[in-house]
Amino acid sequence: MAAAQVWSVDPRTGERRGAVGTEATPDDVDRAVRAAHAARDALADRAVRAAFLRGAAALLEEDRDRLVAEADAETALGPARLTSELARTCYQLGAFAGVVEEGAFLDVVIDHPDATATPPVPDLRRYKVPLGVVAVYAASNFPFAFSVPGGDTASALAAGCPVVVKAHPGHPATSALAADVLGRAAERHGLPRAVAGLVHGFDAGVALVRHPLVAAAGFTGSVRGGRALFDAAAARPVPIPFHGELGSLNPVLVTRDAAAERAGTIGTGLAGSMTLGAGQFCVKPGLVLVPTGADGDELVAALAAAVEDAPEGVLLDHRMRDAFVAGVAERAALPDVEAPVTPGAAGDHTVGAGFLTVPAARLAAPGPHDLLLEECFGPVTVVARYAGDDEATAVLSRLPGNLTATVHLSAAEAAGRGNGAGILARLTPLAGRVLVDGWPTGVAVAPAQHHGGPYPATTSTSTSVGATAVERWLRPVTHQSVPEALLPPELRDDNPLGLPRRVDGHPEHPGRPGS
Amino acid sequence: MAAAQVWSVDPRTGERRGAVGTEATPDDVDRAVRAAHAARDALADRAVRAAFLRGAAALLEEDRDRLVAEADAETALGPARLTSELARTCYQLGAFAGVVEEGAFLDVVIDHPDATATPPVPDLRRYKVPLGVVAVYAASNFPFAFSVPGGDTASALAAGCPVVVKAHPGHPATSALAADVLGRAAERHGLPRAVAGLVHGFDAGVALVRHPLVAAAGFTGSVRGGRALFDAAAARPVPIPFHGELGSLNPVLVTRDAAAERAGTIGTGLAGSMTLGAGQFCVKPGLVLVPTGADGDELVAALAAAVEDAPEGVLLDHRMRDAFVAGVAERAALPDVEAPVTPGAAGDHTVGAGFLTVPAARLAAPGPHDLLLEECFGPVTVVARYAGDDEATAVLSRLPGNLTATVHLSAAEAAGRGNGAGILARLTPLAGRVLVDGWPTGVAVAPAQHHGGPYPATTSTSTSVGATAVERWLRPVTHQSVPEALLPPELRDDNPLGLPRRVDGHPEHPGRPGS
Repeated sequence: MAAAQVWSVDPRTGERRGAVGTEATPDDVDRAVRAAHAARDALADRAVRAAFLRGAAALLEEDRDRLVAEADAETALGPARLTSELARTCYQLGAFAGVVEEGAFLDVVIDHPDATATPPVPDLRRYKVPLGVVAVYAASNFPFAFSVPGGDTASALAAGCPVVVKAHPGHPATSALAADVLGRAAERHGLPRAVAGLVHGFDAGVALVRHPLVAAAGFTGSVRGGRALFDAAAARPVPIPFHGELGSLNPVLVTRDAAAERAGTIGTGLAGSMTLGAGQFCVKPGLVLVPTGADGDELVAALAAAVEDAPEGVLLDHRMRDAFVAGVAERAALPDVEAPVTPGAAGDHTVGAGFLTVPAARLAAPGPHDLLLEECFGPVTVVARYAGDDEATAVLSRLPGNLTATVHLSAAEAAGRGNGAGILARLTPLAGRVLVDGWPTGVAVAPAQHHGGPYPATTSTSTSVGATAVERWLRPVTHQSVPEALLPPELRDDNPLGLPRRVDGHPEHPGRPGS
Repeated sequence: MAAAQVWSVDPRTGERRGAVGTEATPDDVDRAVRAAHAARDALADRAVRAAFLRGAAALLEEDRDRLVAEADAETALGPARLTSELARTCYQLGAFAGVVEEGAFLDVVIDHPDATATPPVPDLRRYKVPLGVVAVYAASNFPFAFSVPGGDTASALAAGCPVVVKAHPGHPATSALAADVLGRAAERHGLPRAVAGLVHGFDAGVALVRHPLVAAAGFTGSVRGGRALFDAAAARPVPIPFHGELGSLNPVLVTRDAAAERAGTIGTGLAGSMTLGAGQFCVKPGLVLVPTGADGDELVAALAAAVEDAPEGVLLDHRMRDAFVAGVAERAALPDVEAPVTPGAAGDHTVGAGFLTVPAARLAAPGPHDLLLEECFGPVTVVARYAGDDEATAVLSRLPGNLTATVHLSAAEAAGRGNGAGILARLTPLAGRVLVDGWPTGVAVAPAQHHGGPYPATTSTSTSVGATAVERWLRPVTHQSVPEALLPPELRDDNPLGLPRRVDGHPEHPGRPGS
């Protein structure tokens, strides 16, 4: 049986643009993983890794026009958004190069012998080493930033782990182009192309997570697909860490005082956030608690006016378009659910943004309305109208884990006069990022970022964005009583690499004044 | 049906000493978890947590004689070992109190807004929060240090997580006593006793890992039991982190030059390490690669002489004794396996230490001798005689993950003349701790310690000993654009708690000169 063709499809027409190779057979997957595994020693040098990451960013910038055009043809995300996503991707590669160079991620801890401890402490020197080959599952909605050259790949390479990326079927041609760029960057820095392999096909993705030489996996996608791979990772004879970002409702609470103060601004802001990128962000606000009464009505009216003005959009592919149209229809058919602006199918290949409203009481106890507490990918949000704080709290207490949770406060509440701190304390258990007076879309690449949250937001406590994303691909190893002559340079007393470290309990930061 | 009685049994006689309550019913487990969950806010204050941990250590010391007597009657580990284990346990509680006070484990990272980044960075402030109720599965072989008041409990409480401990059936009375001490310490510091609950019974352990309010689990025990609980944790509707230490062979390689230099010393040292505590340590050296030839023969002779002198021992319980006797017999019956000193049953309730030898070639490829690559709990080790380095390497390459891997080098090799560094590089992928010229038994409690390793040594990349053990029970949360008035004190610019942190990329250590 011949291997299945992989097609690039234009979501604006539903037409095939052309074939992009074939789906990987089990043998192909095995070859890619073995080649990546064989390449891991080539990544051992931190300086080479940093140069490679920066080189990849430079080559991506060089090829920007071609990459953006290809991605736009496959995803319809538009050149402006894709250009900015590619810039973000390159910035991220550079940021991880900086992480590699600084070396704090190695977590070097040195304890000299202490015979007075119970039990006595011998010479102990700990640092972190790469886990091995990382399987990366690319996302539909970020053809660059969460795909072949994205955060999982960049952080794994930064950690010293080769990757094999399973391309998303929504943008196979973009994936192939980006993989070629990574391959060329690798070669320029004396690394085998296999440090960043690529495979296509659903079955290849399953084979990848089961491969004995795959040591960890990163995933961004749906709850169903992610959970199946998580289960496969856990069921292996040797289970591996599976860092998956699966789904998130991203609740927003608008307090009564905030609505009284600026209903219109909040309604318009919400419209902008929920329709951004045709609602195809994992941090799209999908459930908004708005007070009953005139202020809340004004907020909803402002939201309606802004959403009505939103242009029709093309979703990433027709499967997602179908799921969006069906998901919205199913939700809109629930009792007491209204659609001030009806979301759903528009032109033959486009959808219109909209939103649903529901009394919050309908969500306060289990029932058919629980469907509204599940993510619906696309330009729709659910506005739940609450009468009192108890009702809002009851809904929040029923939510699954989220990437983000947001509250809009009045100026007085934000200044500490009111229950702002109490609300934040209630939101914190729900999410990995809590925001005040903002919108969750727009995930900054920064050391303090955390992009993750309780399940199903993520399958682990880790982040897929920000400097600490590198921690996912490392494990500690302690050297006990290893003679100076045999210590890796990272663990030597004289610190030839100038690494930040903790020695006998005291932090040291070489190169920083006063340390 | 009445709940089953829990019996304390004397392993020196096999007789029941008395009943220790009953096995927990599903309702009992539910009550314990809910009470622990309700107690989590009481643990929010770091100063209270630190005082509680120190208070628990002080009360354990006060009750030392009673605790040691009870533990000795249930485990036959002997007063000397148990006294030292209790001291270690108390030291560990104090060490975690220090970790709590320093606050570095909170991983505070603050990024002020930066409009020049791609995308722009808003005000982001990250720290770590406790996961929630932790289920702790106590170990058979450490009635204190890896049981009720042990490392999992201490690190979880340090993180701010209440615990429910599933007692080991080998020492239920000791567990009840220790839980009472923790309860009294909690009360003295104004905490509910439920911050450290206790349940007995196999079914209770399964119910515990499946309870919706249990947020994470720590386990020390067998591969079979640990894997079953790991699988249950992964199969939950909401999977939880399961940090299990399951089993380890702890390979030791003796180089030809090391054997030539000090065969006798190494043989005697090995005898001491493998018979320590009747071989009931998770870091017992279970496979030792010794060169063929006269020097290796001398090492084996020294080992035999020392092991023959080792006193008979009582194992933790009769089930373990039966498993040891059967496991040794099955291994000794393999072709080409010899027993210079035969391990196995001695008196009615005692066992004798011994060791097996096998040509390393028998282990270099899959076959029935793979049984020798599985941990056999008790005073036995396997000496594999290798002819050349290739043979030793072939055996090492077939090993599952380990807590430790050790090499004995000659003085010249240790000084860097020879292949010492190459051997260390080969051992590192096998284990979480690599040692030179030492023995793996004796796990120091220190910041640089790592007690964990590739599966099945542990089910995660974490450690269960040392300061970083606390990381298992935390997850990061980022605060975005939260007004100063509403920020938790840990995240305020003025750093009222004096926490070490990273601000705009720069490490800060308040209270340290020059920072």
